[in-house]
Amino acid sequence: MPSSKAEILGKPLEGWRLRLYTIIFEADTRAGRLFDQVLIAVILTSVAVVVADSVHSINLAYHHLFTPAEWFFTLIFTVEYLARLACVRHPWRYVLSFYGVIDLLALLPTYLALLVPEVGALIDVRVLRLLRVFRIFKLTAYVSEYQAIGQALRASRRKIAVFLAAVLMIVLVIGTLMYVVEGPANGFTSIPTSVYWAITTMTTVGFGDITPKTDLGRLIASLMMLLGWGTLAVPTGIVTAEMTYARRAATTTRTCHVCLTEGHMPDARYCRHCGASLPRYEHDGAAQE
Amino acid sequence: MPSSKAEILGKPLEGWRLRLYTIIFEADTRAGRLFDQVLIAVILTSVAVVVADSVHSINLAYHHLFTPAEWFFTLIFTVEYLARLACVRHPWRYVLSFYGVIDLLALLPTYLALLVPEVGALIDVRVLRLLRVFRIFKLTAYVSEYQAIGQALRASRRKIAVFLAAVLMIVLVIGTLMYVVEGPANGFTSIPTSVYWAITTMTTVGFGDITPKTDLGRLIASLMMLLGWGTLAVPTGIVTAEMTYARRAATTTRTCHVCLTEGHMPDARYCRHCGASLPRYEHDGAAQE
Amino acid sequence: MPSSKAEILGKPLEGWRLRLYTIIFEADTRAGRLFDQVLIAVILTSVAVVVADSVHSINLAYHHLFTPAEWFFTLIFTVEYLARLACVRHPWRYVLSFYGVIDLLALLPTYLALLVPEVGALIDVRVLRLLRVFRIFKLTAYVSEYQAIGQALRASRRKIAVFLAAVLMIVLVIGTLMYVVEGPANGFTSIPTSVYWAITTMTTVGFGDITPKTDLGRLIASLMMLLGWGTLAVPTGIVTAEMTYARRAATTTRTCHVCLTEGHMPDARYCRHCGASLPRYEHDGAAQE
Amino acid sequence: MPSSKAEILGKPLEGWRLRLYTIIFEADTRAGRLFDQVLIAVILTSVAVVVADSVHSINLAYHHLFTPAEWFFTLIFTVEYLARLACVRHPWRYVLSFYGVIDLLALLPTYLALLVPEVGALIDVRVLRLLRVFRIFKLTAYVSEYQAIGQALRASRRKIAVFLAAVLMIVLVIGTLMYVVEGPANGFTSIPTSVYWAITTMTTVGFGDITPKTDLGRLIASLMMLLGWGTLAVPTGIVTAEMTYARRAATTTRTCHVCLTEGHMPDARYCRHCGASLPRYEHDGAAQE
Repeated sequence: MPSSKAEILGKPLEGWRLRLYTIIFEADTRAGRLFDQVLIAVILTSVAVVVADSVHSINLAYHHLFTPAEWFFTLIFTVEYLARLACVRHPWRYVLSFYGVIDLLALLPTYLALLVPEVGALIDVRVLRLLRVFRIFKLTAYVSEYQAIGQALRASRRKIAVFLAAVLMIVLVIGTLMYVVEGPANGFTSIPTSVYWAITTMTTVGFGDITPKTDLGRLIASLMMLLGWGTLAVPTGIVTAEMTYARRAATTTRTCHVCLTEGHMPDARYCRHCGASLPRYEHDGAAQE
Repeated sequence: MPSSKAEILGKPLEGWRLRLYTIIFEADTRAGRLFDQVLIAVILTSVAVVVADSVHSINLAYHHLFTPAEWFFTLIFTVEYLARLACVRHPWRYVLSFYGVIDLLALLPTYLALLVPEVGALIDVRVLRLLRVFRIFKLTAYVSEYQAIGQALRASRRKIAVFLAAVLMIVLVIGTLMYVVEGPANGFTSIPTSVYWAITTMTTVGFGDITPKTDLGRLIASLMMLLGWGTLAVPTGIVTAEMTYARRAATTTRTCHVCLTEGHMPDARYCRHCGASLPRYEHDGAAQE
Repeated sequence: MPSSKAEILGKPLEGWRLRLYTIIFEADTRAGRLFDQVLIAVILTSVAVVVADSVHSINLAYHHLFTPAEWFFTLIFTVEYLARLACVRHPWRYVLSFYGVIDLLALLPTYLALLVPEVGALIDVRVLRLLRVFRIFKLTAYVSEYQAIGQALRASRRKIAVFLAAVLMIVLVIGTLMYVVEGPANGFTSIPTSVYWAITTMTTVGFGDITPKTDLGRLIASLMMLLGWGTLAVPTGIVTAEMTYARRAATTTRTCHVCLTEGHMPDARYCRHCGASLPRYEHDGAAQE
Repeated sequence: MPSSKAEILGKPLEGWRLRLYTIIFEADTRAGRLFDQVLIAVILTSVAVVVADSVHSINLAYHHLFTPAEWFFTLIFTVEYLARLACVRHPWRYVLSFYGVIDLLALLPTYLALLVPEVGALIDVRVLRLLRVFRIFKLTAYVSEYQAIGQALRASRRKIAVFLAAVLMIVLVIGTLMYVVEGPANGFTSIPTSVYWAITTMTTVGFGDITPKTDLGRLIASLMMLLGWGTLAVPTGIVTAEMTYARRAATTTRTCHVCLTEGHMPDARYCRHCGASLPRYEHDGAAQE
């Protein structure tokens, strides 16, 4: 774990900038932790307000409260944004980073509405709500596991890409097959639509908005369902069998009476450690597959 | 495993209280086991009556039988509750414990109906049925595995919380995205509704009460379905691959040059079959990926 | 694997009975294998006929062919049944065994129709079809893995029972909760119906014939979906993480230059086998969790 | 990995044929890699055109562009096909191989349309689109993992066949049972239809186009849902439990009495940290279940 980020960025920060940096970017001090907790609470509350505002009944009743609340949140996020920019050595690096972009998007809707009063007519209010909801990503900075998960994903990216490509090839071909067999009359209006159906079926989601009506179509659908479900069920079953086999075959509790080494294989006649002969006791019957 | 709970609670119980305690809270004696079995039978029967009573046709035909049956059950549970209170050292501790609350809820509906005759008009009979159904939780005391599962869950609670938070962030953002793309005209009437749809899709439940109609919406939905299903399929596949490697690693292809037995453990120094000394060759390096 | 079943049943069979037994019950001889293959073919064909006969269009076109075919199959199965009874030592044991019952059910419909001509009016032809379809179970005798799977299931039956009981408790309580929240107006007409809905949701099937309409109902439904899906996703993720951890932490390829023992833990400074000092090379960086 | 395929096919190729072979079939040279990349791009683009052409609105707008594009692709694939035939030693072997058939199918539609102008009336344009979409399989030659996956599948084919047979038996019998219980009035019009429903339910897809209406039917459906979901949930849970035990077994709680380091491997004789000899105590028996 690196030491103070303040040093990593080059010339050490001094004075008020260093103190501000410690509060905002680090969580070692009491002030730093308090800052983090307050910010998390503000993020969660502001997103909750956006979500509630989208419900028509709540919107009608409380919109007059939500608008000043939104201004309040925007103010806090603006102060936080400017503070971050003020105390890092390379502001532009922060502006272009993932969190910098998220922060900017968090501020954009409200200022747009201020600068361009007719923005509500140009940009759907729903889009503005979406931009505000992106604030939720600011929370990932506070959970270290996500960095670890991110790395694990990057490490396995080729495996995932290969798997995904195989799935896409299958849904493309089976989708097109259903497009031929069922046809537009039964809902399979084009290849993209049929591929959408194939994905809902292979992933076992099964919306039911499009369903096969012909016998041949239902047969193909059945095969696809077994394929998608089997992709999960077969490895799971094999793994369970492996675990059982490994437990039984690898080690028993037999102990060598000379050197006391434990964990000999069920069929061992001599101790693997000292070579002494092992008596044929009643051992944990290992089911040979 | 603790010894008699009677001692843990402080001053040992005596006489009839101790005998009552042994019957009710412990299952070592014949009376204790009989008590447990009778109680389990009563719990199951009383819940079955509540469930059957909710079916309109059965309700019409048998309600006149169910009401006295319900009184009978309530009586038994009251006696049991009072007996428990009578023989523990700290009654209030039991009253406030999980099982104490469940027991009280089990009794509440019938007594409410007695004390407040118009309760049926104040509280929906469906709520009263729900309170009675909570009795089913009394059964968990009889299955030790549930305590173990409870502990395992508590131990992993941070991992689970992190996983859950990630899922919630994803369904919130994708739900809002669909709210923007599809809009209220297509069923995505508010962000909470869209999040509900996103959860049905990511968990592969797929009710179909709300479905995307636009091409872009169906594309986003496809990505979400692959994400939810892939969360299960990819780790399962990786685990299966790991197991295959692990099997190869547990037993190597090392061969004893005397008796030609294969498959010795990596750290074996003597052949398990004939006792001859095994040379330290370059063995089949457990395939490092 | 036991020797000839002929001996296990007591006094050894002789003459034609022994020969018949070898053909029917064992598969070592050429006649025995031929018998098995013919019987499998007949079973599959007879079931296919039953399945096809249930399709209205096929029934109209081919029923005149299916009836004599059904008589042919019944004849073969009767001969087989009588042959089996004739060459085992304890016929009643076979009659009452699993396969004996299946065989009898396979013959029943056709003979019933013969003895009681109005059987079609008494028993739905659909029930007769079901009895005929049970023949498919005769095939399990030919696949040894099913015996192994059956044993594995019997061995884990307590675990499975505990798991099942927990699932049933959850669907009962959540189902009743939805019955209270949504009510009969929204499809949740009784507790059994609500439990049926809860099962479709927790198992992620999601038919969509009943769906929550209220906001609170949809919230509870979301929790249930996450619970059911999470029951699969969380263990899968933990297992993958464990595998990664176990691979990195348990063994590296470091080799002791004195005794050549491999697979030391990443932080080991001394060889676990001979005590010699291990040099601190660039080893496979094991990510400590 | 074999050396140049050119040699494997017998007499070595010479001159221009060898150069052509190196470019087309191998990826070591710069020209070879360029060829591969261009071909992959052409394959993806041609399939994208077929997919887009099936969407009615796009078809109306751009068909006049798609037709010459399709001719262009067919030309490239023809040249590629002829080039492949020209530089392998046994052309017929390639024509009959998997990729040879795919290549031919890729060319067929366009030439059919040329030679038989009324083909659009004889063969549905949808079928022609399907044949063109098969080109996507040409991509599998470029991903080595698919060969590995193919081999793994072939190796486990008996296990998969046994699993599949069991699933088919179950869906056949339960499907027929629902056919009897629910009947044609509720959507279960024939045994094949009921089996289709049983598959959608067991694989947890749950389209909802057919759903049980009777109480008994819903009960059977519930059992089936629990069976299908349980097939995934139970092994996953068992595997997680196993992993937990395995972690405890890999490192024990043995403590070195000199330096107090914990967690030595079960067979360690010397402390990995300070080199002191470890006494052979009764160590934390890896919890045997």
